[in-house]
Amino acid sequence: IQELQLNLEQIEKGGYDHFMLKEIYEQPDAISDTYRGRMLVNENLIRMAGIDDNIEKFLNAKRIIIVACGTSWHAGLVAEYIFEDIARIPVEVEYASEFRYRNPIINKDDVVIAISQSGETADTMAAINLAKENGAFVFGVCNVVGSSISRETHAGAYTHAGPEIGVASTKAFTTQITVLTLIALRLAKQKGVLSNSQFNEHLRELEQIPEKVKKALESNEHIEVVASKYKDAKNFLYLGRGFNFPVALEGALKLKEISYIHAEGYPAAEMKHGPIALIDSQMPVVVIATRKGHYDKVVSNIEEIKSREGKIIGIVTEGDVEVRKRADYVIEVPETLESLTPLLTTIPLQLLSYHIAVMLDKNVDQPRNLAKSVTVE
Amino acid sequence: IQELQLNLEQIEKGGYDHFMLKEIYEQPDAISDTYRGRMLVNENLIRMAGIDDNIEKFLNAKRIIIVACGTSWHAGLVAEYIFEDIARIPVEVEYASEFRYRNPIINKDDVVIAISQSGETADTMAAINLAKENGAFVFGVCNVVGSSISRETHAGAYTHAGPEIGVASTKAFTTQITVLTLIALRLAKQKGVLSNSQFNEHLRELEQIPEKVKKALESNEHIEVVASKYKDAKNFLYLGRGFNFPVALEGALKLKEISYIHAEGYPAAEMKHGPIALIDSQMPVVVIATRKGHYDKVVSNIEEIKSREGKIIGIVTEGDVEVRKRADYVIEVPETLESLTPLLTTIPLQLLSYHIAVMLDKNVDQPRNLAKSVTVE
Repeated sequence: IQELQLNLEQIEKGGYDHFMLKEIYEQPDAISDTYRGRMLVNENLIRMAGIDDNIEKFLNAKRIIIVACGTSWHAGLVAEYIFEDIARIPVEVEYASEFRYRNPIINKDDVVIAISQSGETADTMAAINLAKENGAFVFGVCNVVGSSISRETHAGAYTHAGPEIGVASTKAFTTQITVLTLIALRLAKQKGVLSNSQFNEHLRELEQIPEKVKKALESNEHIEVVASKYKDAKNFLYLGRGFNFPVALEGALKLKEISYIHAEGYPAAEMKHGPIALIDSQMPVVVIATRKGHYDKVVSNIEEIKSREGKIIGIVTEGDVEVRKRADYVIEVPETLESLTPLLTTIPLQLLSYHIAVMLDKNVDQPRNLAKSVTVE
Repeated sequence: IQELQLNLEQIEKGGYDHFMLKEIYEQPDAISDTYRGRMLVNENLIRMAGIDDNIEKFLNAKRIIIVACGTSWHAGLVAEYIFEDIARIPVEVEYASEFRYRNPIINKDDVVIAISQSGETADTMAAINLAKENGAFVFGVCNVVGSSISRETHAGAYTHAGPEIGVASTKAFTTQITVLTLIALRLAKQKGVLSNSQFNEHLRELEQIPEKVKKALESNEHIEVVASKYKDAKNFLYLGRGFNFPVALEGALKLKEISYIHAEGYPAAEMKHGPIALIDSQMPVVVIATRKGHYDKVVSNIEEIKSREGKIIGIVTEGDVEVRKRADYVIEVPETLESLTPLLTTIPLQLLSYHIAVMLDKNVDQPRNLAKSVTVE
């Protein structure tokens, strides 16, 4: 019976060594499954029942409050940048655990978006109940169909990532960003803050993302080399700016979760206000430095780190020249619109943490101390 | 000439080994200098010209946006909790470096508060200019009189901390919180969201803070013992909830800045969404667990850390029983209103980082790679 079980598990892993790796590779399909039927590129249209049926709530919202925990909270931070930039609606992102206990200001016009892969996260559930009691309209973004959060929210949109087994969330994160991007675009069009041609450009670019994720995944072997080089580091820093600042946080969280290496994410420009004191030759620094995201500023951040002997792993746009000159390693991702770069820059960070954890012989799919779905406070 | 210079410096340090220690000990006076003349306890009144002259701007504000960097950003996060809790005005806190580059949403009714000890921080200055271009009313909280930010803002309130020489900010942080608390109280009274007796209670408690800071400073020798125990740790975590979550971030930043130990702050309840994987017997965890701040929840967070063999240093209220039973060390601070606890819980964290840095023979007042005032991007 034991053996059969193992065989079954191997079948479920579809030839991959771990669920996490399988789920990383499922992202092109998960992302297209998530936008399929909702994004009609030829008709220049986004159709989402949960938004369409409640469009007035969203248009009247003075602000959107996003509540979430862990990786979903990082997706919320990415969404903050996307909503504010594309749809011009102020967004406040809150840790669900903090929100629920702090007598938050919630107005009747506020829209609350709750993000949770499992749809069962206890703190997020409690935040939803609090928001409802205060008269807010609550919208859920969950992956598990029929989950508590999907039932308790006024409306919602599922991510279509399929079951996520690895405790460290990967495809849930990128599909959450996909759903939230669709919502931002839908509202931007309705509000008239994006022109038809800009809107269409976003749809066309989003449609390309699955192919570009596949392209990003082709760096896997190169990333394994980078992982072997830095696997014994005791600390990592992850830096990003703008849309990619939350990606830096998420990259650091992945490494923490599965390899137990203390990694911390920071907005790149904050380095000089303290964290740069940590930099020496023992400190690898992962810097997201795509061409569209304040590239020159990030290049000068890289020079500051170099001059303190820090090791640089740059996540760069294909064909990059400037970071490559300065970094110890670069990992390329395809070019896309700046607001969509998180969907690509996340991929190498997932693979980097995966390979480091495997090399350190950690239990990748079930890291110590962690549960897949945190149903207690 | 060299010798005279040293003697002068010793005189300037007023008998302390380092400016940082001197400045930590100056906090009782710095805080009372900051509220003196503004807070009239017997008259149940707060009088601040910069607020009084612009009271309509603040009362009409749909939200307050705080822009800052580094330690000042942490003071802004504390202020977010205080403003929302006491004055019921929504607050968004932004890294100045992110705000200035991200096409932020600024409305004419918005009030922007910029916080900077030196008043010369380049990113904060740029954020102010952007906010002004967009028609926002900009209020400065600076320490250096006549500084660029104090001149370029529409109005402001100085902290009266006196010159801060140590690169790691200490008394600037607590006096920033003091000023921001005064503003929140002033607005709360004007809005009628605090009763007269609640308002008066806050004033009376704030008036007591300098004496309570003195009391907190009496733990110095005990903190030295704690420092000697953990000085060789390669990593630290700092946890807090609510008003004390930003204090955890600030405590971690102090340790990073002057002892180059990788310390990271987290809202305590987020631990289980990832960072708890890091916990083992090598990981000291500083937990702010004052009696008023969701005490039971924090005690259960402590138990989770204990069961993974993490080492606990608890920052607790005088007379604490429950944390003491579970922690490896506790450091007491006097009791006060929950919203004022950051002014007390910060003190032992400053001393802890100071003593660790001294024991590691680091240059406490001029840590590597850091400048006192970051006047470049």
